Amino acid sequence: MKKIANGVYKLSLGASVEDRYLRYVPFHPSENMGLYEDCDSVLSEEDFSIQMFNGRIVVRYKADCGEDFYGLGLMLKKVLLTKSRKRIKVNADPTSNNGDSHAPVPFFISPKGYGILIDSVRPLTVCFGNNTAKRDRSQTKNFKNKIVTNTAALYFSPTATQEEKVISIETQESEGINLYVINGKDVKEVVAKYNLLFGGGALPSLWGLGVLYRTYGVANSTDVKRLAHSLRKDGIPCDVIGLEPGWQTNVYSCSYVVDQNRYPDFYEMKQELLEEHYHLNLWEHAFVHGSSPLYKPLYDLSGDFEVWEGLVPDFTLSQTREIFAEYHLQHYIRQGIDGVKIDECDDSDNTNGWSFLSTSVFPSGLDGEEMHTLFGEMYARVFEEAFQKEDLRHFSQVRSLGLGASSHSFCLYSDLYNHWDFLRGILSSAFSGLLWSPEVRQCESEEELIRRLELVSLSPMCLINAWMIPNEPWKQYDEKKNIAGEFLPNCERLTAKCRKILERRMSLLPYLYNAYYQYQQKGIPPFRPLVFEYPDDDRARKIETEFFIGDELLFAPFIYKVHGADRKVYLPRGVWYDFYTGKRFEGEQEITISAKDDEIPLFVKEGGVIPYAKPLQYTTSDTLFEVELRCFGERDKLRPCCFFSDDGVSYAYLRGEYSIQNVSVGTDGQYIISNSGKYPSRYTVTGIKYF
Amino acid sequence: MKKIANGVYKLSLGASVEDRYLRYVPFHPSENMGLYEDCDSVLSEEDFSIQMFNGRIVVRYKADCGEDFYGLGLMLKKVLLTKSRKRIKVNADPTSNNGDSHAPVPFFISPKGYGILIDSVRPLTVCFGNNTAKRDRSQTKNFKNKIVTNTAALYFSPTATQEEKVISIETQESEGINLYVINGKDVKEVVAKYNLLFGGGALPSLWGLGVLYRTYGVANSTDVKRLAHSLRKDGIPCDVIGLEPGWQTNVYSCSYVVDQNRYPDFYEMKQELLEEHYHLNLWEHAFVHGSSPLYKPLYDLSGDFEVWEGLVPDFTLSQTREIFAEYHLQHYIRQGIDGVKIDECDDSDNTNGWSFLSTSVFPSGLDGEEMHTLFGEMYARVFEEAFQKEDLRHFSQVRSLGLGASSHSFCLYSDLYNHWDFLRGILSSAFSGLLWSPEVRQCESEEELIRRLELVSLSPMCLINAWMIPNEPWKQYDEKKNIAGEFLPNCERLTAKCRKILERRMSLLPYLYNAYYQYQQKGIPPFRPLVFEYPDDDRARKIETEFFIGDELLFAPFIYKVHGADRKVYLPRGVWYDFYTGKRFEGEQEITISAKDDEIPLFVKEGGVIPYAKPLQYTTSDTLFEVELRCFGERDKLRPCCFFSDDGVSYAYLRGEYSIQNVSVGTDGQYIISNSGKYPSRYTVTGIKYF
Repeated sequence: MKKIANGVYKLSLGASVEDRYLRYVPFHPSENMGLYEDCDSVLSEEDFSIQMFNGRIVVRYKADCGEDFYGLGLMLKKVLLTKSRKRIKVNADPTSNNGDSHAPVPFFISPKGYGILIDSVRPLTVCFGNNTAKRDRSQTKNFKNKIVTNTAALYFSPTATQEEKVISIETQESEGINLYVINGKDVKEVVAKYNLLFGGGALPSLWGLGVLYRTYGVANSTDVKRLAHSLRKDGIPCDVIGLEPGWQTNVYSCSYVVDQNRYPDFYEMKQELLEEHYHLNLWEHAFVHGSSPLYKPLYDLSGDFEVWEGLVPDFTLSQTREIFAEYHLQHYIRQGIDGVKIDECDDSDNTNGWSFLSTSVFPSGLDGEEMHTLFGEMYARVFEEAFQKEDLRHFSQVRSLGLGASSHSFCLYSDLYNHWDFLRGILSSAFSGLLWSPEVRQCESEEELIRRLELVSLSPMCLINAWMIPNEPWKQYDEKKNIAGEFLPNCERLTAKCRKILERRMSLLPYLYNAYYQYQQKGIPPFRPLVFEYPDDDRARKIETEFFIGDELLFAPFIYKVHGADRKVYLPRGVWYDFYTGKRFEGEQEITISAKDDEIPLFVKEGGVIPYAKPLQYTTSDTLFEVELRCFGERDKLRPCCFFSDDGVSYAYLRGEYSIQNVSVGTDGQYIISNSGKYPSRYTVTGIKYF
Repeated sequence: MKKIANGVYKLSLGASVEDRYLRYVPFHPSENMGLYEDCDSVLSEEDFSIQMFNGRIVVRYKADCGEDFYGLGLMLKKVLLTKSRKRIKVNADPTSNNGDSHAPVPFFISPKGYGILIDSVRPLTVCFGNNTAKRDRSQTKNFKNKIVTNTAALYFSPTATQEEKVISIETQESEGINLYVINGKDVKEVVAKYNLLFGGGALPSLWGLGVLYRTYGVANSTDVKRLAHSLRKDGIPCDVIGLEPGWQTNVYSCSYVVDQNRYPDFYEMKQELLEEHYHLNLWEHAFVHGSSPLYKPLYDLSGDFEVWEGLVPDFTLSQTREIFAEYHLQHYIRQGIDGVKIDECDDSDNTNGWSFLSTSVFPSGLDGEEMHTLFGEMYARVFEEAFQKEDLRHFSQVRSLGLGASSHSFCLYSDLYNHWDFLRGILSSAFSGLLWSPEVRQCESEEELIRRLELVSLSPMCLINAWMIPNEPWKQYDEKKNIAGEFLPNCERLTAKCRKILERRMSLLPYLYNAYYQYQQKGIPPFRPLVFEYPDDDRARKIETEFFIGDELLFAPFIYKVHGADRKVYLPRGVWYDFYTGKRFEGEQEITISAKDDEIPLFVKEGGVIPYAKPLQYTTSDTLFEVELRCFGERDKLRPCCFFSDDGVSYAYLRGEYSIQNVSVGTDGQYIISNSGKYPSRYTVTGIKYF
């Protein structure tokens, strides 16, 4: 095994081969890898066996019985991989827990302190199952005839023996395969190193962490302006307005040309929104319609099959990316439009088979199977490159990503909608350098709207995707009535309720912005499952209904149709405090909490100091946050909290244009700020509250 | 293309290769292929292109825009394959519409009058999607900017152009591949020929078409006898009692040895049940526990990985099948136990990864991927061979089958439970020579119990799988209360209701038995979707909530949680009659019907004569059916109905020991029977009823 960074080893099995997936992604270990200690590999070369199977390479090694596994990308149906088999493959409608995903990633992690990255750009199967090799058991004395009478007990009971299990990695590579074993003291360090191998995590624009509201599909410019005014009038926080397909002359496939019927005053409208401090985000997909100005330039740079009669550009070629980017820079980005939603870049299995064949051929020589793995990521790269060219940060949406996407300021989404799936998306993406938004769309009741808004308000991207309705969902959640303009009788009350939920996000923006900065610098995901913090806690390892936000906050959302008026919350070891009342809880136990109006279940770790800002409707480069320091636990044991300041919109922070304030709260209502860096602080402390 | 039977052509692509899947199944065209006319192939050799892709063979051809496709085995989520992509693969928990199935079959059918059988024993992908090859569309004048505001409209709208679509068959074969193109005048004929290529359809034992009741998982012999007596006492029709895992000394994996604790008087109990005219069916799976008498004999005949610490026998070897069969013959079959439920022979993806690795190796040289495809079918073959040796017919259960299983007297089942999925199972399996039971298990309400019982009562196998509860579900459908012995206050009323539903099946037994005989002889499935009868009716082709039983009856069940008090029924062209009232309906329209107590929605084609028997609780070799002839439509246009008589239990009918009575009803309450064959008729006509 060849060491390539602190605790990171490369293992080449079979014939020596070039990088397959890694050549397409920014694989350049960050300097900050030095933050983590070097260590030996948990697994050595001798632990792996290689086998040729049906012309493919299969790698096996032995894991402990009971060893847990996580990762493999965005997994909506279950976060824990233990005792499952996954064939990871891009799919727009991943309705089964089989490895289909918007964003499969060939990288998995064990709490034993290692992760394995498989450098293959094709679907691959990993069996974390209950597999044991044959051995003579004819002398067995171990009888089982305890009969169970339900399926769960039947298939999910522990096995009788505590034998080692065989982990099998089946690739579709035929000559040789490179694995990278990433070692660290715990899950968090392994994931951090993974992210730092790809330049660190994403730090979106500051405004990107505000609220993104996507407008009605058939809206015209009048409708959009009306909606934008309405949000401001109601005091609903919102930083970004998103336009859905209707802005283009042709969609499915795309012309990328403004439809003069719906948007005769497109650029004036844009200007008006900008002046109201809205950023503008445009929907598109990559399939180029015959009428598009991009059609002819991209014809020879596209695959041999179409999607919706549009070209499928080969974005792995820099020439393709440049043409595509230059068009968007000229017409949109340089006009002040600084966000995109890039749709349908995954693949279709269940959704009408609309995508290109996995056996298509592309000018780069890649086939459709490889291209499906790369397509979302390379499409996102078009815009990453374009925005970087303009020194502009953004926070955009994409429906597919893969390996090594940590530094992309793109957040994943899906047409699926199960609420627990949407929560699990936050958890699972944390293992793979991904960000996910549990967006709010249609709702059948006030309860659903509230529950969904609560979760999305404290998620990576606060996205209200109202493409099905012309008016805000808090004015009318019923789709038909909303379209008919028939508002709820209690819509002021519900509007106030929703405003408060969104204001809470804005209040936590300083805390979130710092968490994202830690992601960028240290590779630690801002939103993460409990196993990151308590890897040796068996119960914490299985929790799929709670997560950490930053270092101090534990969020246990009420999940629609899973939790009713009460839910259980597992608090790991230590002492915990209710964020609102400061009520103290001993950890390592499950408590029951009740749903409350105007509160969402947040718990603070003992000693935590949470900066809580006066909520704003939007942020600008000049925004100054007025912050109250909320302190939990004994006054002499409080940890410092951290502020990150920069312009929030450019990459200047990477050129030294930033500052960090460490705030230490004393026992007497005083605090000390230690400042490093030259950028003026964006924060002013207006008070301290002890709980 | 080489002609191998009437309208059946073999096409070898790439290098010349031996049969891959067909070598394992009874591929010997029945003499009855002569019933169908010879015809040319719709597709010629030139229509297919072959391409090497990543070491695999891909076959493509062009289909008409709008051409429909069916088949590929048991598909629970959607019957129609049009515009989808399926990767067919064995999976115990096929929760997604992606091709995962208990019984994938590499054979699909187009109503244009052809079917394509792909002779591959590995997972394969067929794209019936919306795929078009790239062509220059820069001059397009065809703009689309009709914006839709829901996902279904977005992905499932028809495409703008009416161009040919590319059908792509991606195999995992690398040298050459054999396709068989089966041509016929319509879907029915193509399927019939498919079945006749494998010896014709299954004709189960007559008693196998009665009710099969599976008992509580933890039942002992006293419990089983009590249950059996209870059914007889309540007059509930039942021919077969099934024992669940508890009968063995070790389960998960299996010892195949009677547990003396639960069943100290196993053979006496069996005798007592036989005397009450019950047949006995035993649960098992194929994984052999260390304590089993079969362990040592099968050790070297098993794969290199275990399942639940048990051996995985290589049933493709005749020696393995003989050892396994001989043990069962000696201990069970020759003792009068004439049915099995062979479980978990599929594969596990979602259910805890319990099965063997697809990269295991077997003594025959097959690998785990091939073995997963074949495992259920070869396991069933063990018992087919054993029963044939004893000249005994049966009707057993199996959880996985595949290509060429038409003649197996095995019915598929699943741990899934969505009611519409269970109905679709009946429809989809008809295209692939499979039989499926929408078994009744747990129920949350009387409505659910009734709806499920209605569907299963007129399905291939009438199976009540009460493994979770000790008492009959009509006495208490609530699981916990049932276990506590707490009966419903209205249990006599509900028992009577359920009795009536099951009696209806028994009344239709002569009609069903003849339909199965037609399956055996002509290859026409007894239960089949509307496209079999009305292939040129666009609406009929898409119907997934109705099906035909035999030639005359159309069944439109109320689906639990899909239909409420009303449902719509599409009646194809012609005239239709309500089975109960004789109410006349013009066809080619959708009618609305209301759910009724004691009636399930059955419609009879004009001119149909349905033999309706006095219901029996069970049948024996001596059973004589007292039959009323129910005649629908104008008296001078009635079609004859057909009775099939044989001993019902042996294969003697294949040696000429049978008879057929064709009954022509006159206009005056008279009828004429034309008899052929020497076996005494089992039917006596007791009346005629005109509607």
